[in-house]
Amino acid sequence: MYSFKNDYSEGTHPRILNALIASNLEQTEGYGKDRYTIQAIELLKHKIKYSNIDIHFFSGGTQTNLTSISAFLKPHEAVIAANTAHILVHETGAIEATGHKVISIEVNDGKLNSHHIKSSLDAHTDEHMVKPKLVYISNPTEVGSIYTKAELEQISSFCRENNLILFIDGARLGSALCSDENDLELADLAKLSDAFYIGGTKNGALMGEALVICKDRLKEDFRFHIKQKGALMAKGRILSMQFLELFKDDLYFNLARHANKMANLLSKEISSMGYKFLIHSPSNQIFPILPNRIIEELEKKYAFYVWSKIDHDNSSIRLVTSWATKEDAVEAFIEDLKNLTISSPNIFSLL
Amino acid sequence: MYSFKNDYSEGTHPRILNALIASNLEQTEGYGKDRYTIQAIELLKHKIKYSNIDIHFFSGGTQTNLTSISAFLKPHEAVIAANTAHILVHETGAIEATGHKVISIEVNDGKLNSHHIKSSLDAHTDEHMVKPKLVYISNPTEVGSIYTKAELEQISSFCRENNLILFIDGARLGSALCSDENDLELADLAKLSDAFYIGGTKNGALMGEALVICKDRLKEDFRFHIKQKGALMAKGRILSMQFLELFKDDLYFNLARHANKMANLLSKEISSMGYKFLIHSPSNQIFPILPNRIIEELEKKYAFYVWSKIDHDNSSIRLVTSWATKEDAVEAFIEDLKNLTISSPNIFSLL
Amino acid sequence: MYSFKNDYSEGTHPRILNALIASNLEQTEGYGKDRYTIQAIELLKHKIKYSNIDIHFFSGGTQTNLTSISAFLKPHEAVIAANTAHILVHETGAIEATGHKVISIEVNDGKLNSHHIKSSLDAHTDEHMVKPKLVYISNPTEVGSIYTKAELEQISSFCRENNLILFIDGARLGSALCSDENDLELADLAKLSDAFYIGGTKNGALMGEALVICKDRLKEDFRFHIKQKGALMAKGRILSMQFLELFKDDLYFNLARHANKMANLLSKEISSMGYKFLIHSPSNQIFPILPNRIIEELEKKYAFYVWSKIDHDNSSIRLVTSWATKEDAVEAFIEDLKNLTISSPNIFSLL
Amino acid sequence: MYSFKNDYSEGTHPRILNALIASNLEQTEGYGKDRYTIQAIELLKHKIKYSNIDIHFFSGGTQTNLTSISAFLKPHEAVIAANTAHILVHETGAIEATGHKVISIEVNDGKLNSHHIKSSLDAHTDEHMVKPKLVYISNPTEVGSIYTKAELEQISSFCRENNLILFIDGARLGSALCSDENDLELADLAKLSDAFYIGGTKNGALMGEALVICKDRLKEDFRFHIKQKGALMAKGRILSMQFLELFKDDLYFNLARHANKMANLLSKEISSMGYKFLIHSPSNQIFPILPNRIIEELEKKYAFYVWSKIDHDNSSIRLVTSWATKEDAVEAFIEDLKNLTISSPNIFSLL
Repeated sequence: MYSFKNDYSEGTHPRILNALIASNLEQTEGYGKDRYTIQAIELLKHKIKYSNIDIHFFSGGTQTNLTSISAFLKPHEAVIAANTAHILVHETGAIEATGHKVISIEVNDGKLNSHHIKSSLDAHTDEHMVKPKLVYISNPTEVGSIYTKAELEQISSFCRENNLILFIDGARLGSALCSDENDLELADLAKLSDAFYIGGTKNGALMGEALVICKDRLKEDFRFHIKQKGALMAKGRILSMQFLELFKDDLYFNLARHANKMANLLSKEISSMGYKFLIHSPSNQIFPILPNRIIEELEKKYAFYVWSKIDHDNSSIRLVTSWATKEDAVEAFIEDLKNLTISSPNIFSLL
Repeated sequence: MYSFKNDYSEGTHPRILNALIASNLEQTEGYGKDRYTIQAIELLKHKIKYSNIDIHFFSGGTQTNLTSISAFLKPHEAVIAANTAHILVHETGAIEATGHKVISIEVNDGKLNSHHIKSSLDAHTDEHMVKPKLVYISNPTEVGSIYTKAELEQISSFCRENNLILFIDGARLGSALCSDENDLELADLAKLSDAFYIGGTKNGALMGEALVICKDRLKEDFRFHIKQKGALMAKGRILSMQFLELFKDDLYFNLARHANKMANLLSKEISSMGYKFLIHSPSNQIFPILPNRIIEELEKKYAFYVWSKIDHDNSSIRLVTSWATKEDAVEAFIEDLKNLTISSPNIFSLL
Repeated sequence: MYSFKNDYSEGTHPRILNALIASNLEQTEGYGKDRYTIQAIELLKHKIKYSNIDIHFFSGGTQTNLTSISAFLKPHEAVIAANTAHILVHETGAIEATGHKVISIEVNDGKLNSHHIKSSLDAHTDEHMVKPKLVYISNPTEVGSIYTKAELEQISSFCRENNLILFIDGARLGSALCSDENDLELADLAKLSDAFYIGGTKNGALMGEALVICKDRLKEDFRFHIKQKGALMAKGRILSMQFLELFKDDLYFNLARHANKMANLLSKEISSMGYKFLIHSPSNQIFPILPNRIIEELEKKYAFYVWSKIDHDNSSIRLVTSWATKEDAVEAFIEDLKNLTISSPNIFSLL
Repeated sequence: MYSFKNDYSEGTHPRILNALIASNLEQTEGYGKDRYTIQAIELLKHKIKYSNIDIHFFSGGTQTNLTSISAFLKPHEAVIAANTAHILVHETGAIEATGHKVISIEVNDGKLNSHHIKSSLDAHTDEHMVKPKLVYISNPTEVGSIYTKAELEQISSFCRENNLILFIDGARLGSALCSDENDLELADLAKLSDAFYIGGTKNGALMGEALVICKDRLKEDFRFHIKQKGALMAKGRILSMQFLELFKDDLYFNLARHANKMANLLSKEISSMGYKFLIHSPSNQIFPILPNRIIEELEKKYAFYVWSKIDHDNSSIRLVTSWATKEDAVEAFIEDLKNLTISSPNIFSLL
């Protein structure tokens, strides 16, 4: 059984284990005051090409989201997010648990634009309603789509004109930045957003997200918030050392490129068999629509999520590739799907 | 510069790294639904000698405390804790941030007893005050003292009679259970408390705490709380695998025994030089009182915390040993202290 | 300028002022432990025809909602509500501020049914999502519609089968129960819901809501929650005395009947002029759709909210009547609207 | 049975009832946007002799405290308060319920000074601890003592030098400002504090506190916070109208003067009988120490709280006077105490 369920099925890239081994018995300061963390912060600033940013390391995405958003907002301020947003759907109300409403905007492709945001501002008119203050977007989105530079610039301008905080969830940022359709760089994110994070957990780290705070006002006392939310690791170096390894050369991007390449291969071949997709996704998650009968056959050999029901006979599935996805597993999946497609009456293509 | 600042200065025991390496490229389920986590839970149940318990893994102590306590309490319910309690002093108000008051009880040795708890219950008489509901103790305490079985039984009985939840912070539980003065076993904790945790971060793990929930009513829906607080790790196996390794034989206890042995050696020798201690501590933290002039000299070669001012000329310091503390570093420290004691006019002994 | 903006424009029914005057200099216990509160609770239990209920008085609806809901839920539990729900739209995120997500269900008429609730349960499948636990409905709804007994029974059964708490916001309950289309009694609410409240502020009281807790499990320690949320009034008798006066005969219902009668008169006459309504509302709020030009003219003499844009030329407005609405003001409004309708080209009727 | 239990046993001063009656059927805007509220704000600004302040009305003290403090602080910021502080002891953890720790400072007389505050700042050194940010004092304190102008100036200077918010709970402010020992004016409070409130509930209003926000940064969006905490009354005019009446002449101060006069009379006479007091109190709460046997006799005719045990035979009691306290009741109490003192062996004076 080979799994395409997610990009955190395996442990970590071997170079990261080696880095942990190399420094293992060295004594360092606790709580991210060690020399590895200092180095990792400097390295990331260099890679991002900005020095006036603060960087903090977390062990997971939900933790990063809830710590940041609750630190950035006052009690009456709310978040605007797409209906597919991870914080809205899959974080067990973590943001609300810190006291803030998340306003859901219905979108088709996981992506917000300034018109969505404006409509939400227009609907919140006085003190009887929450005050929308932070715009949360994910790049790539939870359904695999990515933002272009022009799109991000439009959102960023709107947010600045309206005194809104722009926060980018980058749990899978590597995949977005290495997509064939991407025209953004790390420096653009630092320039256009108020805070964003570079996801490690889903791109080859054992665990770890690097939060980048760009807006000065949001930086103050941030370590207090990390500690209060239980996110300040005693052996903080474990997080930063991984980012040191991922970014000391192009490892981070190479891992993401591999994940994307595997996803592209799947997309191209599945498409060439005549199947459609729920959504256009140029990153490491794809959502092909397949006949239920074929899905049932595939499930005997592969693990993946059945995403949504399309009609009586067809469903979309989610295939996720990662830094660790084996090319021969992808090829085997394609071969199996081809055989199933030929041998089975393709209900979908008759529609 | 050798550090006695804490027990999380180094990485992890090599066997744990080896376990991570061995399984690294295996695909497993995410979020603690993997086979390693299932095995680790079974193994711990076996070691604790109780099967009717739930076990969850966390990456740190503050996270474990805040997730558990906020899950266990209703909004008006409060925690009773010693004035030295970690949740009161060193967790940036993490419990209050989830909405609950922590009632401080002034004690001398870090330890609560049933009289303390009763006095707090007596002082909280009606709905204009919070309702004390959970008793938080640490074993060992934050100042190195430990609970005897009789003491824990007394607290446990009182809590049960008064419908209070007893929660034991075991961030350094290994050191308590391996202390020369200890008469408690893991099974006693499961029998006497409603929830406790077995600390890994401070006893040789890369990171990790194993929360044991004993009381049925507290078990329900617990994974929702873990996720909501950002504590459910995507690669949950990283936590459980460490506990598998620590408990598959006596590694966990052997590491704690080493830490205690190093602390005992320090205590015995420092005591034999005529110095007193702030508190009697039979675990891996000790608090000798030294002349400030000697402390300044020691600080040139060793890292440690100056804990509290005793008088104009003397202070207590905190020395922490760990699974990784080197015996020759301990011996060197003792030697240096002896030399400083002989050569310096011992202000303290004149008092 | 006569106002149809809301049902809290005036002070209070004169009998309530008289009751306050009569007892003014009597010394009583504070915080709702006085004899008036005890009497009011007994009286309401008699009127509701249930004795196994707890009753608490609050000074406003948002306060009642937030205190109750936060007391009833655990941190990971969420509320299901219609998209029009007061707690979702007009309480500045008060529920989220206590840590709980409010799940919005899109409805047309302000009313939830068991299918809506079931679809929400079905969508929340595991610990990565909040756990829906409390169903919030308003009767009448925020758009004036009311629940029939059959509808409420269906919701109640579904909630009981699925272990959900059913909470009824009765800010305008008098108007619902006195509607021509109503077939519910107070006793039905106590039987079918787990908690509901009887609104006074919008039905002739100076201020005040009477919360009725029916489900035993939800009653415990409730006064702690009231105090903690700042809702326990020092002179609690001021709240209960008003309910004593409203319910010692049929005053509460007579006031609601008057409000409904005025709304019905408006509806009937506006309808007979050929205008349509945004929604069928048999209570004291109505939503006629009028040409913008006529609305602008009406605004010169009457205060009311323009509710929503219908098309380029027409909008719906909200007219609210109350216990204090003067019949001649209603007649004047109708007369003015008739004259404007005749003299103005009726854009709407041409559509 | 005459009650000296508190200053909220009776309803309200008759002039307030008359003001409510006079305007009762007038239609006004809701939620404090009415003309009475606008007038009351202007009048209070005039009385306070400051125009650059914001004023908001609340229905009770706990509500005012929790709304203000939670609005003013970020999640990691804490409150410093005396151990007797109302928010620490008698508000059911209302501040903690909004997420903030209240740091208790042990004092003898209910009063904080800058040394207390400094010691708390010194003890909070880094991000592992909360950050003290708001100093909460009450004037008069919960044990009847009052601040002099010099004392308040010292605290105020210290707070400004250390970037701390100074908040004054004025639930019984009238009594402090009308004390024989007072040298503060309303204008001083506005000059020296960042926010304070003028208590009405305990000085003749039906209910109501007027919060004055002096510091600009704290004013922004404040009505959102009021609404979110359930404190924005629909008929907001009921609150402001009372302050209009209390301050349109010297009624507010005259009522407080009466309360103080009654307390002074009690103090003077009780003192002249040879009894001591738990604390020097120049406001409307006094704490005489009496033999338990006499207390038991007094309890047959008078209601009051037994405050604290002094020794085996003696206790302190709390006597509270108010705007409504009858002089002949005070005289009767004194007479009764005299008689009991003569007839009973005065155990206390033998000590």
